[in-house]
Amino acid sequence: MASRRVRGAGGQSARRAARTNLVIDTAKYIERNIPNFEIMNLESIEIIEEKAEEVLENIGVKFLDNPDALKLWKDAGADVSGELVKIPKGLSKKLCSTAPSRIIQHARNPKRTVEIGGRSLVLAPVYGPPFVRDFENGRRYATISDFEKFVKLGYMSKWLHHSGGTLCEPTDVPVNKRHLDMLFSHILYSDKPFMGSVTAPERARDSIDMVKILFGKDFVNNNTVLTSLININSPLTFDSIMMGALEEYVSNKQACIISPFIVGGAMSPVSVAGTLVQVLAEVLSGVAYSQLLNPGAPVIFGAFVTSIDMNSGAPTFGTPEASKILYGAGQLARRLGLPFRSGGALCG
Amino acid sequence: MASRRVRGAGGQSARRAARTNLVIDTAKYIERNIPNFEIMNLESIEIIEEKAEEVLENIGVKFLDNPDALKLWKDAGADVSGELVKIPKGLSKKLCSTAPSRIIQHARNPKRTVEIGGRSLVLAPVYGPPFVRDFENGRRYATISDFEKFVKLGYMSKWLHHSGGTLCEPTDVPVNKRHLDMLFSHILYSDKPFMGSVTAPERARDSIDMVKILFGKDFVNNNTVLTSLININSPLTFDSIMMGALEEYVSNKQACIISPFIVGGAMSPVSVAGTLVQVLAEVLSGVAYSQLLNPGAPVIFGAFVTSIDMNSGAPTFGTPEASKILYGAGQLARRLGLPFRSGGALCG
Repeated sequence: MASRRVRGAGGQSARRAARTNLVIDTAKYIERNIPNFEIMNLESIEIIEEKAEEVLENIGVKFLDNPDALKLWKDAGADVSGELVKIPKGLSKKLCSTAPSRIIQHARNPKRTVEIGGRSLVLAPVYGPPFVRDFENGRRYATISDFEKFVKLGYMSKWLHHSGGTLCEPTDVPVNKRHLDMLFSHILYSDKPFMGSVTAPERARDSIDMVKILFGKDFVNNNTVLTSLININSPLTFDSIMMGALEEYVSNKQACIISPFIVGGAMSPVSVAGTLVQVLAEVLSGVAYSQLLNPGAPVIFGAFVTSIDMNSGAPTFGTPEASKILYGAGQLARRLGLPFRSGGALCG
Repeated sequence: MASRRVRGAGGQSARRAARTNLVIDTAKYIERNIPNFEIMNLESIEIIEEKAEEVLENIGVKFLDNPDALKLWKDAGADVSGELVKIPKGLSKKLCSTAPSRIIQHARNPKRTVEIGGRSLVLAPVYGPPFVRDFENGRRYATISDFEKFVKLGYMSKWLHHSGGTLCEPTDVPVNKRHLDMLFSHILYSDKPFMGSVTAPERARDSIDMVKILFGKDFVNNNTVLTSLININSPLTFDSIMMGALEEYVSNKQACIISPFIVGGAMSPVSVAGTLVQVLAEVLSGVAYSQLLNPGAPVIFGAFVTSIDMNSGAPTFGTPEASKILYGAGQLARRLGLPFRSGGALCG
């Protein structure tokens, strides 16, 4: 009996220890030492840079429902008429120059803090799927329970350095408080860095309030602990919801990815070069605006570009055009000395 | 009734015409005008080239059961002892220099003739799967009926410029005559260029005899109409079966891909650089041998490299190491001025 008790107890406690002492191993973000793939030669790059500034000067960008933004642009020397902002050549690039080339985004666990920019490469989970798929129910709308599982899965992965943001859309939680549950999941089930809400300015404010509880107010005032995704309403339009979120984050020194969201051929020219001109014009004006709000605020050159099937109008993933645009956008980001964010190598 | 007859006949004949006048549209092979991705700098390349020649001089390669090959090597100045051939520095590179940098492989339909090498990129179907999968039976051994279907599918694809070779292993046909049915399928169901048999020297000879029936003897004597895959029995071993097939093709000016077949970590060093040294040593000696047999014979620098799971011993596909080795092998091929063949960007 003594021997049985000892065996039983030892076996149980060993199993419990194995469960509770589970070590989650995370690789440090990748420090690349292979060369970049430079798809464009210098002449091509310079033409695209020239044309992007021409777009800003002659066509301009729209800041919708945002009189404060219009005033800032006017004071900076832009030609503002109605909601249209025409930016004279050189101005946006000059404004962009105060943006830092590297960003430290702190994680709750300091070992998982990441450096974004330069030669470092940070991998994060997918952003934004409304649907999930499981064995029993097939394709269906995602729930907060799915969201929590994806946070845990991302946490368990050695090769995801970042917990991401909208791992899926938890459609069973009302939109006005969904962001609270999403952030809470990232905070509760992971100690990796994560992203804030952007669906309304007040939700960005909530995100900042929550990380102040997590990290302490002083720490958040002095450090970047959130990176959030600000999509430009392509073509050439900055809506007040996304800009409101940007304004919250940027004035609190929290990082933003400023990212055109383009289906090439529908929201931009169909050609690779034409789309790159538009991508650059949009990023230049968005980053310039962030620096008008708060010079030195951490921002990232983003690019989400896919193509369209000209027969059906359906977005197509994994096309050569999208890959070429991503490589080109990376080159343009390096020319500006900005960190760069893109999706992975999409393979349909 | 007249109107019914006219309608009926018109409908039928229109449908028949639609069936029989089906136009199979094939894109011309790709002429690349994006830059190559040069993963290694010149110093790294030169170290690998230096070490590959050291491997050939000090370790050597084996030509098994092949006294004629040993004699050719001895006469060319190699240090031959038993079946081991040690190749003094510089000799293999010198021999390689007679191999052409571009190959025209003629198709039965001249519009589908491809140029291999330089900036052109020719896409061919997969080579060698023993299994197929279908809805009714799941994963199962392939048959000649599957093979025929794959030839037809490859023929229908606009983006496959080449009909390939062993689209699957038709296991219901005895090995000694399997190659005849495979080649006959390529000849009957496609007019794109295709590959010859390599499973025995006499089957290579059969392949050449069959293309002589198809293209005419004179044409085959003066042109390349087959490209066949000669795998090196890595590490550093050339077996008499593959070499026998190579000898047949090369002496008939038909093209060969000379390709190490490496599971890195099992059949080569585990490191990227070490495997590249071995790949280059094997290709250098294989190509040099082809030029000893017939100077000017068309050959292609091949590389099939995957990695191994060091815990289980299972081959792993889609790892960064395999991609780095492919990019590096491409650079080494360009340095030699040889066309290059690899698998696609494997994504597991």
